[in-house]
Amino acid sequence: MRNICMRVNYDGTDYFGFQTQPIGNTIQDVIEKSIKYLTGEEIKIHASGRTDAGVHARGQVFHFHTESKIPLERWCMALNTRLPDDILITDAYEVPLSFHSRRSAKRKTYRYTINANQFADLFNRRIQLHHPGKLDIKAMNESLPYLLGTHDFTSFASRHSTKDSHVRTLYEARMDHDTSMCRVDHPRDQGIIHIYLTGNGFLQHMVRIIIGTLLEIGEGKRQPEDMKHILAAQDRSAAGPTAVSKGLMLWNVEYENLLKKTCDNVLRSSI
Amino acid sequence: MRNICMRVNYDGTDYFGFQTQPIGNTIQDVIEKSIKYLTGEEIKIHASGRTDAGVHARGQVFHFHTESKIPLERWCMALNTRLPDDILITDAYEVPLSFHSRRSAKRKTYRYTINANQFADLFNRRIQLHHPGKLDIKAMNESLPYLLGTHDFTSFASRHSTKDSHVRTLYEARMDHDTSMCRVDHPRDQGIIHIYLTGNGFLQHMVRIIIGTLLEIGEGKRQPEDMKHILAAQDRSAAGPTAVSKGLMLWNVEYENLLKKTCDNVLRSSI
Repeated sequence: MRNICMRVNYDGTDYFGFQTQPIGNTIQDVIEKSIKYLTGEEIKIHASGRTDAGVHARGQVFHFHTESKIPLERWCMALNTRLPDDILITDAYEVPLSFHSRRSAKRKTYRYTINANQFADLFNRRIQLHHPGKLDIKAMNESLPYLLGTHDFTSFASRHSTKDSHVRTLYEARMDHDTSMCRVDHPRDQGIIHIYLTGNGFLQHMVRIIIGTLLEIGEGKRQPEDMKHILAAQDRSAAGPTAVSKGLMLWNVEYENLLKKTCDNVLRSSI
Repeated sequence: MRNICMRVNYDGTDYFGFQTQPIGNTIQDVIEKSIKYLTGEEIKIHASGRTDAGVHARGQVFHFHTESKIPLERWCMALNTRLPDDILITDAYEVPLSFHSRRSAKRKTYRYTINANQFADLFNRRIQLHHPGKLDIKAMNESLPYLLGTHDFTSFASRHSTKDSHVRTLYEARMDHDTSMCRVDHPRDQGIIHIYLTGNGFLQHMVRIIIGTLLEIGEGKRQPEDMKHILAAQDRSAAGPTAVSKGLMLWNVEYENLLKKTCDNVLRSSI
C-alpha cells in the first residue's frame, strides 16, 4: 500500500465544489474517475478541505492510498491526459502512510480578488469579483489587522456551520493593491485588489463573509474598527454579506517537514 | 447620422470568429443584436479586420452609423449589460463620418502566447498554446528580424487568401520571455513567451503560420536564417504549420490623429 499526495489546480466555475455531492459533477468525482481509469481501483481521495461551488484552487492538496505500482514521476502526466482542461495536477509525492491532507495541514492560505476598475477584466472574469463602485481601499487595508490572532469567528461563519468550535487562528491578513492596469482615460479605475488570508483553518464561508464585510467598509457603510465589534458579537448577523464564490481561490496549504517546497510553489525568480 | 467607434475585448473561445457567418454565433452577430436591442436599429458594424474562430481580442475596433441620440458616455455600459461576459466594450468615441475602422487603420499589433512550461497555466489556458517540449528560445528570437520590412508574405498566407497583393510591411517583431512563473522543482519549465507583431496589415493566418514556423525553429528543425529563404520562396509549403488559434490575440489597432490614446491603452503606471 502506498500513500500518494498530489497538488491540484482547478477552475471551479463549472463544478459543484470539491467534495462529492449527490447532485454529482464535483472536482473529487472527476479526479477519482480518472484514477480509476488509470489504475482500475475504486479509491477515495481526501483533500485538505472542501471548497464551495465556484471556488478555485491553485494549491489544493489531496492524498489517497493505492496498490498501483505506477512510478511517481508518471502520475501527473497520466492523470492530466484523462482530466478535463479545468483541472490540472502539478505535483505528486509519495508520503508516509500516516500523512493526511487535512489533519496534517498546518497553515492554509486563501486569496480573494476584487477588480475595482471601471470595466471587468475579460480574461480574468472567472476568478475576480468586479466591483466598479468607489472603494476606500485604505480603510479596507486598515481593517485587516483586527482579524489577526486567535478568535471565535462565529460572526464570520455560515449559520449552517456544523463545527463544534469556531475558534481559529489567523496568522496573516495581507492586501496586494495593483494599479498597473489602471487607464489614464478611465479616472474611475481603482486597480486590482488581492486579499490573502492565512490561518490554521477556515470555517464555512469564512473568507467570503470577511470579504463581504471588508467591501462594506470600503463602501463607507462601516468603519475599520467595527471589525473588532463584529468579532466580539459572535453572531453571523453582525457581519456583512457573503461575497460571491468566483473571487475566491485556495492559494496554498502548508505542512510541517513535508511538501514544504511544493506547497510554497517556489518560483525560480524569487530566489 | 452619427459615426460611433468602439473598442472591444473578447474571448473568442466559444465563437466562430468575428465576422458574420452563415453558421451563426459570431462576435459581430452578438454585438449587432445588442445594438438593435438598445436602439431598435438594424445596423451593420465594421471592424478593423476579421479574426478567425477561437482568436481573441484586447483591442479590436469597430464603427457603425446610427441615428440614435444616446449620449456617448452611456453606450459602453448600456451595451455591456446586454452582452455575454466574454465580450466587453471598453471605449466609445464619436468620430467623423469619413472614419472607417479598417480603411483608416495605420498599424495593427497581434500577440501570440506560448506557455513553454511543463504544465499548462490553468487560468490562462484559453489564451495560450501549451508547448512543454524543449525550445531554443534564443534561436526563435534571432529569427524575428528577418521578417521586418516590406515583403511578399505569400509563404505565410493561407492558400485560401483572396487578396490581390500579399505585400505587407512589418514594423516590429518582438519577443517578451517571462520566466517569473518557472518553478525551481520543475527543471523543464521554460517560461511564457509572448510574441508581438506590428504591421500595416496581416494576411489570413499570417501570424499563426509565422508562429508555427518559429516553433519549428525552436524545435531545431529549422535555423533562424531559414526565415529569409522561406520569405523568398513565396510559397505556402515552404513555411511551417499554422499554430492553433487560441494563442492569438488582436492586441491593438492604431489610427492617425484619431483614437491614439484609446488604442494605445494608456496605463497610468507607464507615465
